[in-house]
Amino acid sequence: MLNNLTDHIKKFIDLSDTDIELINLAVAVKSVKKKAFLLQPDQSCKEIYFVSQGCLRLYFINKKLNEQITQFAIENWWLSDYYSLESGKPSNYYIQAVENSEIISINKNKLEELFKKVPRLERYFRIVQQRAFTAAQKRIEYIYSFSDEERYRNFSKRFPEFMQRIPQYMLASYLGFTPQFMSKIRAKKD
Amino acid sequence: MLNNLTDHIKKFIDLSDTDIELINLAVAVKSVKKKAFLLQPDQSCKEIYFVSQGCLRLYFINKKLNEQITQFAIENWWLSDYYSLESGKPSNYYIQAVENSEIISINKNKLEELFKKVPRLERYFRIVQQRAFTAAQKRIEYIYSFSDEERYRNFSKRFPEFMQRIPQYMLASYLGFTPQFMSKIRAKKD
Repeated sequence: MLNNLTDHIKKFIDLSDTDIELINLAVAVKSVKKKAFLLQPDQSCKEIYFVSQGCLRLYFINKKLNEQITQFAIENWWLSDYYSLESGKPSNYYIQAVENSEIISINKNKLEELFKKVPRLERYFRIVQQRAFTAAQKRIEYIYSFSDEERYRNFSKRFPEFMQRIPQYMLASYLGFTPQFMSKIRAKKD
Repeated sequence: MLNNLTDHIKKFIDLSDTDIELINLAVAVKSVKKKAFLLQPDQSCKEIYFVSQGCLRLYFINKKLNEQITQFAIENWWLSDYYSLESGKPSNYYIQAVENSEIISINKNKLEELFKKVPRLERYFRIVQQRAFTAAQKRIEYIYSFSDEERYRNFSKRFPEFMQRIPQYMLASYLGFTPQFMSKIRAKKD
């Protein structure tokens, strides 16, 4: 499982055997059962999570008391509530396993120590953060430029395999519409 | 003007005189008149922009042919269309000066060369990208959790000085509602 992380890092930077050892000492591997939580509201988020296998979701409870999913993370993606992580303030979010998952976590203080020992990791995380920001820029663009139905069609075209993995009601929540509306769109398609 | 950038970088990492020289050789300083463009649709975005003084906005034209602003950048913020920058594909966006501005730009190839010469800059940009992503996570949360009016009140509470700097119609566009709705909310407030 640890290999999945260092293999991913090696796509972007070189790692020596010593680097790999230092990384493995800094992280923790967690087997997370489907529906188990890694973060819940009012906790301060202290870790970032790498999905080695499986799927996580980030969501909060909106005023209508519905789950509003704002992000998913599948293999080779990182997930965290960065506002809570950076500020130390309590999170508004849940991070929950959508499937039985293998997760690699790093505590934020341990990550800072690791950066000192393996400075090249700054490059890896710079690229990871830039990609995450790029995805967020696109997500905001889609929210403002597509109708609900267009957003559904666009998403299913871009991520056909992911569509098979997650329950429809979660996809509806992520795309910002009701499960009823989702059923209507899917009926039209078939 | 170049000092504003290196001063900002020095808040996060140490820079030697040689580092500063290398940075200054890699960047370009641009005086941009209000309403001038740094990027227009169908161009491929090749630079990232640091606001030394002034204000930029990132926007696209939506299907109703209205300007949809997705980001502002004021002093000490970076702005780019990262999707176009990374993929080389044509942008959907305009980057335009909201005020007469002093901008420091770096071409993406020159930035890659600079990273090789001053590897510690990876840390600076890792932090910059993480902050940008944190802001985007919050923005997506607010889109889904607040009503239009709440989003306006929240924004004006968090950024009172910025509210004074930008035209009301731009703020309405950024918050995703019409100038008419904005006038109604403001009338209520007074």
